[in-house]
Amino acid sequence: MKERFYREGSDYYRKLLSPYARLKIIELPEAPPGLQGSPGERKALEFEEKEFIRHIREGAFLIVLDAGGEILSSPAFASRLQKLQLEGKVKVDVLIGGPVGLTERLKERADLCLSLSALIFPHRLARLIFLEQLYRSFKIIRNEPYHR
Amino acid sequence: MKERFYREGSDYYRKLLSPYARLKIIELPEAPPGLQGSPGERKALEFEEKEFIRHIREGAFLIVLDAGGEILSSPAFASRLQKLQLEGKVKVDVLIGGPVGLTERLKERADLCLSLSALIFPHRLARLIFLEQLYRSFKIIRNEPYHR
Repeated sequence: MKERFYREGSDYYRKLLSPYARLKIIELPEAPPGLQGSPGERKALEFEEKEFIRHIREGAFLIVLDAGGEILSSPAFASRLQKLQLEGKVKVDVLIGGPVGLTERLKERADLCLSLSALIFPHRLARLIFLEQLYRSFKIIRNEPYHR
Repeated sequence: MKERFYREGSDYYRKLLSPYARLKIIELPEAPPGLQGSPGERKALEFEEKEFIRHIREGAFLIVLDAGGEILSSPAFASRLQKLQLEGKVKVDVLIGGPVGLTERLKERADLCLSLSALIFPHRLARLIFLEQLYRSFKIIRNEPYHR
């Protein structure tokens, strides 16, 4: 049931986003359970880091979602995206970590470490929030009314 | 479709919360469209304020969700809730504003003005986030593993 409503929510915003952006969501495999939980957690992080790095595209602007990252309001986030558009940086990769989080190396590699909240969210919820916010940003950028 | 996945998400966390808290969700009517949008917005806010005040329970600890409110991490929010439990304040009312937001008077009346994020969310998403976080808090308080 959890899987379903998060998938439906994600599909809902993807559809709304389709006039504004070409969006591809890739779910990477979590580290095998044997690697999770300390003291294996470091190994799980490294396993997942490798997966992430394999998928980061050449020349893409890299956004990493991290509770400890930069705090932006919705208009401020929209204006960052608009700036990227104006600079012709239209290829953007967004990483959302799983339950074990993300390595420091990935956070350092990011062009923008973005904090959605000081609260910790499950990654499916983080994805839903990010998609809604992306849609909201395009509406702000184009000065269109937000479809509630 | 939006209505549906948000309702299902909300039901999902309500069910998970049922061993920990008796939860009642009341959806108040939005101000009629004629009152919305400036310069009618003030009237819409006042209309909705009246609705909120009618429902705030005598002696309840009042939490108001507001992007400009206090920023707490998940463990910090959990420890606030735990403190309330220890003080015997087990009746908690939570207000989530609609598209026009909430009056300053309601924010001042709140015992806790809580910011889920600096980002603006639709109220259905704010509710989903809050329910997930409430569930997470009880898991933290009881030192139980979080059911991902």
